[in-house]
Amino acid sequence: MKTLEVDLGNRSYPIHIGTDLIDRPELFNACEKATSIFIVTNTTVAPLYAERLTRTLEKLGKQVKTIVLPDGESYKDWKNLQLIFDNLLKFAADRQTILVALGGGVIGDMTGFAAASYMRGVRFIQVPTTLLAQVDSSVGGKTGINHPLGKNMIGAFHQPVAVIADLNTLKTLPARELSAGLAEVIKHGAIADADFLDWIEANTSALLACDTTAMAYAVLRSCEIKSSVVSADEKEGGIRATLNFGHTFGHAIEAGMGYGEWLHGEAVGCGMVMGANLSCRLNYITQKEVSRLTQIIGSMHLPTQPPPFGAQRYMELMQVDKKTEGGQIRYVILEKMGKAIIQSVPDGQVIETLTATGAHQ
Amino acid sequence: MKTLEVDLGNRSYPIHIGTDLIDRPELFNACEKATSIFIVTNTTVAPLYAERLTRTLEKLGKQVKTIVLPDGESYKDWKNLQLIFDNLLKFAADRQTILVALGGGVIGDMTGFAAASYMRGVRFIQVPTTLLAQVDSSVGGKTGINHPLGKNMIGAFHQPVAVIADLNTLKTLPARELSAGLAEVIKHGAIADADFLDWIEANTSALLACDTTAMAYAVLRSCEIKSSVVSADEKEGGIRATLNFGHTFGHAIEAGMGYGEWLHGEAVGCGMVMGANLSCRLNYITQKEVSRLTQIIGSMHLPTQPPPFGAQRYMELMQVDKKTEGGQIRYVILEKMGKAIIQSVPDGQVIETLTATGAHQ
Repeated sequence: MKTLEVDLGNRSYPIHIGTDLIDRPELFNACEKATSIFIVTNTTVAPLYAERLTRTLEKLGKQVKTIVLPDGESYKDWKNLQLIFDNLLKFAADRQTILVALGGGVIGDMTGFAAASYMRGVRFIQVPTTLLAQVDSSVGGKTGINHPLGKNMIGAFHQPVAVIADLNTLKTLPARELSAGLAEVIKHGAIADADFLDWIEANTSALLACDTTAMAYAVLRSCEIKSSVVSADEKEGGIRATLNFGHTFGHAIEAGMGYGEWLHGEAVGCGMVMGANLSCRLNYITQKEVSRLTQIIGSMHLPTQPPPFGAQRYMELMQVDKKTEGGQIRYVILEKMGKAIIQSVPDGQVIETLTATGAHQ
Repeated sequence: MKTLEVDLGNRSYPIHIGTDLIDRPELFNACEKATSIFIVTNTTVAPLYAERLTRTLEKLGKQVKTIVLPDGESYKDWKNLQLIFDNLLKFAADRQTILVALGGGVIGDMTGFAAASYMRGVRFIQVPTTLLAQVDSSVGGKTGINHPLGKNMIGAFHQPVAVIADLNTLKTLPARELSAGLAEVIKHGAIADADFLDWIEANTSALLACDTTAMAYAVLRSCEIKSSVVSADEKEGGIRATLNFGHTFGHAIEAGMGYGEWLHGEAVGCGMVMGANLSCRLNYITQKEVSRLTQIIGSMHLPTQPPPFGAQRYMELMQVDKKTEGGQIRYVILEKMGKAIIQSVPDGQVIETLTATGAHQ
């Protein structure tokens, strides 16, 4: 097991990465002072791991209840958040209750926002069971739900007290979800570490086969990159926004298709192709680098071809995305492979990218 | 105009208290960098002040929109919070948008929670137009909405960037709401300043008549007391809970009657009578002091007689109240007039208080 610390002063927390971690009660020692523990999970993950995790937590001498939500991005809404609150209140959860998010990014985001808002804030632990959640969404404290008019529009910054990434849970992951997670792994290389990107390119097969050694490194390095960025800029005043590479286009794809049609990671994978195209158009990276990144993304079985909504629809969808400020969209651009910057871009060049990538036909 | 500063490090903010403040654009200088301003108000307050406030804010060169919610505690729910989000998204509010809460405690709590959650946090200004909001709810950063199973169960700590208490807005307040606000004024005396309680007792008529000089002092001293407590304990780990004197019983009354039947301040007034009875029962204050406090509360036309739900129902309602920890209810007790402490109390003595005050018949 490897442990790395996210350094956020009195909100610091450990990320544990290894195999069979959900059987180890000592990793959940934050629960020692909890009055009760609520596992929040979904209908897919519950049959696989909820009982094992319950047994582990009960070894701490605590009462453990499980709240099971439907599975999928389309359920990341107020209605299902309410289901969490209803259960917490029904079973008299108090301010010393701890929530445990057992599942992917949707479960982590919703549980985190429930923890942020229940009685104005209780603690929570992330037990991410998808690659996407292990390398991205469980780290950094962004929580929230979707609004019909935009993704993650309602939420809070609320840091977990621990992240426990059990690599064995990835073995049961459908291939499509594994690929979606690899999109964020590639992103970390592209924005922050060219050597890591080389390593990813050289280990494509091992990663797609969910090889434990390869996966352990991919998760660890991703968490290191993400947590160092988050430590420097917890609430996304500046550098943290570079983690959104591929996300402005990706969110437009997700919203335009209807949440849940494309997996978040698939949309980000395709969004990175578009972001790379734009970076090249702005004379930062070369066409060859765009092709190479596109090839890496494609080799992970991720889509590289955006849906052809047309330029106007993309611009509308991106306008409502939360990274707009004063009407100006800020794009994450690759200054070079392994380094991202943020800037606004004239609509004309964005439309050229939409046309060149087939988003506008 | 008097200005006092709530000292919370980089979340510090001023409270301005005076007359005709909503006409003074310079008090809203926090809006200078805002991309847009949304006034959130209700159907009662909007016709009185929304246009005047809009004119003031437009002087800052900003686009101002107004969101009007229905008026009343029973509307402090998710559905109306959604109305705020719907409007913010519809009109492309971004992270640099500022919300302005124009109204009483319900508007302030909902607007504050909307600001805390919209895009994971935007800034907001409190313009409290009720006495209750001016002396209590607009200061301290507690925001939230009600859940059918409990009051303020869903929310956040989110500090405003300014509080602008215009005493003239109190002139249009119905007598019943003025009295409800005076309950919290009395509370500040009871828990923190015996001299202030003497002053309140001596100025009952002036306060009930909404005399500007008397009211200015009542608001200022209340804000001073509340903000010093909040500065010492922003997230209610300890001393801040003393501000809940009368609230454990009061919330039970509000929930038991159905939100909106009793005004919050009325329930707190009556709750303080019950809290004083309990404090006497625990040998802290004398029966004479209980009678005096009851008399001050009654002289402000506040109820001093709890609804007779019966002891069991009260205990159930209080159990779900958010101040319970590990099943144990923590009560705010007057150690003496002008000083409150927090402790758990055996159910037997609470039931004696419920019986003695007529809550259990």
